[in-house]
Amino acid sequence: MTATIHQIKGNSEPSLEPMLALVATDLNKVNAVILERMQSEIPLIPELAGHLIAGGGKRMRPMLTLACARLLDYPGERHHKLAAAVEFIHTATLLHDDVVDGSDMRRGKTAANLIFGNPAAVLVGDFLFSRSFELMVEDGSLKVLKILSNASAVIAEGEVNQLTAQRQIATSEEKYLEIIGAKTAALFAAACKISAVVAEREADEAALDAYGRNLGIAFQLVDDAMDYASDGETMGKAQGDDFRDGKVTLPIIFANARGSDEEKQFWREAMLGKRTSDDDLARATALLEDHDALSDTIDRARHFGQRAIDAIAHFPPSDAKSALIEAVQFAIARGY
Amino acid sequence: MTATIHQIKGNSEPSLEPMLALVATDLNKVNAVILERMQSEIPLIPELAGHLIAGGGKRMRPMLTLACARLLDYPGERHHKLAAAVEFIHTATLLHDDVVDGSDMRRGKTAANLIFGNPAAVLVGDFLFSRSFELMVEDGSLKVLKILSNASAVIAEGEVNQLTAQRQIATSEEKYLEIIGAKTAALFAAACKISAVVAEREADEAALDAYGRNLGIAFQLVDDAMDYASDGETMGKAQGDDFRDGKVTLPIIFANARGSDEEKQFWREAMLGKRTSDDDLARATALLEDHDALSDTIDRARHFGQRAIDAIAHFPPSDAKSALIEAVQFAIARGY
Repeated sequence: MTATIHQIKGNSEPSLEPMLALVATDLNKVNAVILERMQSEIPLIPELAGHLIAGGGKRMRPMLTLACARLLDYPGERHHKLAAAVEFIHTATLLHDDVVDGSDMRRGKTAANLIFGNPAAVLVGDFLFSRSFELMVEDGSLKVLKILSNASAVIAEGEVNQLTAQRQIATSEEKYLEIIGAKTAALFAAACKISAVVAEREADEAALDAYGRNLGIAFQLVDDAMDYASDGETMGKAQGDDFRDGKVTLPIIFANARGSDEEKQFWREAMLGKRTSDDDLARATALLEDHDALSDTIDRARHFGQRAIDAIAHFPPSDAKSALIEAVQFAIARGY
Repeated sequence: MTATIHQIKGNSEPSLEPMLALVATDLNKVNAVILERMQSEIPLIPELAGHLIAGGGKRMRPMLTLACARLLDYPGERHHKLAAAVEFIHTATLLHDDVVDGSDMRRGKTAANLIFGNPAAVLVGDFLFSRSFELMVEDGSLKVLKILSNASAVIAEGEVNQLTAQRQIATSEEKYLEIIGAKTAALFAAACKISAVVAEREADEAALDAYGRNLGIAFQLVDDAMDYASDGETMGKAQGDDFRDGKVTLPIIFANARGSDEEKQFWREAMLGKRTSDDDLARATALLEDHDALSDTIDRARHFGQRAIDAIAHFPPSDAKSALIEAVQFAIARGY
């Protein structure tokens, strides 16, 4: 085992604590911006947005903006508004995702669309999305606006791509990586990259983009494995949601490729929505286990996590660098 | 009858032809941008967007940007991209509206969400919305970005406000005007105002904003009257949609205020969705007629139309000014 790989497995219980400690003061300011800017004279807007924004979530993406800014020793405050903008884009995406998926749970709570209805979830998502652009315009950096408007378009494309691939058992690993690269990793990448823009460290933009992108892929891979491995309490959503929605994630791609003809038949039917009982889910989980599909998915995640860590290898040692590395280790360790 | 009011009623058959003729060359270029920028490697995106964008619509908002730029003798081409951005915002809104309303028809065709499903309509709306910001960022004017991001947030707020007011027969005329001022007039205003920004005619921004805003209100008032007066072919949507959706528009506010107790009971039940038969719609239409509710709604529209015309009164005579005036007259005349 190389020293590099050792970085991933080195910490037996990695956590987000170092990053949280690093950005705590900044994050309070970001939260203040978020709370202020989700207000509206239309009471339903803060009510619904608050259900999701105030109610939970790790603030992973804004934390990345803040931690990357610390890595670059950025002394200013511009990134607070921009981190809030990133979280608004993310929240808008979650609200629309839940409508698209007909989700029951989100962040351990009843999904907003079930409480407030799909129409309100769609429209409040639109509001938050618009608000995020207002925040960026106030900051005034066209470069940031370009990065985040492009990320938003890519996210939407990724979501449509996933919709098209849904229930298609023939989805390849390449297509799957393309989808999560767009729907998840694009915003992680943008969240990190914009810190280099505000810090006026153009030479570091690509490195932070790569850090965020690879972390985002790792994060999503582990999430997709955890959808089969954890209960609703840990995950904040119901176990087996992806299975019942016919989402062809990497664990299924592995198990299907390695399965017998009869198993392939099972997966095809399952993705088509013909196998949605608890017994079917139990069988799916057993097959994933038999074929090492979950552990191999985590292995893939570890690969992308390592790339994230390597992308920032050239930065001198600092608390920020250590926190960013441990955030990657945390993302992977969730899967074990 | 004053000379001013005469302007509205002066033309017996006003049309959009003068405006179309004025901006024909520009509009072709805008359409080229629209077609180019709705492309994506994910085939469902241009397919769904094309259904709505390529398939119809008067391009009212981009035409206004173009015509206002002509009014200001703007010699450049920047407004082509921005007019496309405006149309993308509008299209995104329509896609989400149809999901919110569960519409059957749009622009005389089956609504996109019925053909492609609500999930695709939500996500392609998000894509077009993001694309519109990418177009604005390419143009590079923070002022335009501010105007249009603000308009987008106001539109979303207006839509949520309308959702909250839905089925509430007690909605006041003031609240109704507030709703349509946000959901419709804000984008009309922005479409006009940005032409003054690209033409660097700051002193004219407020006038064009007022022209667009008042025209937008007039336009929506007439649309709301036409929902009860026209067939699906004229309107591009099914007659009585608003009635069945429990949308408390101005005609209903008038008829309810002027009705007997028994009629008030009918309207309340109707807005609550307990009166959705063809007979109920026929009764509603008869009551609107009895109480002059449609013609008085058009009268209100005429008032706002006049304000739109007055807002550009100080401009010297030109083809562009005449076309902008006739566009207002056309918007009103649809209601007669």
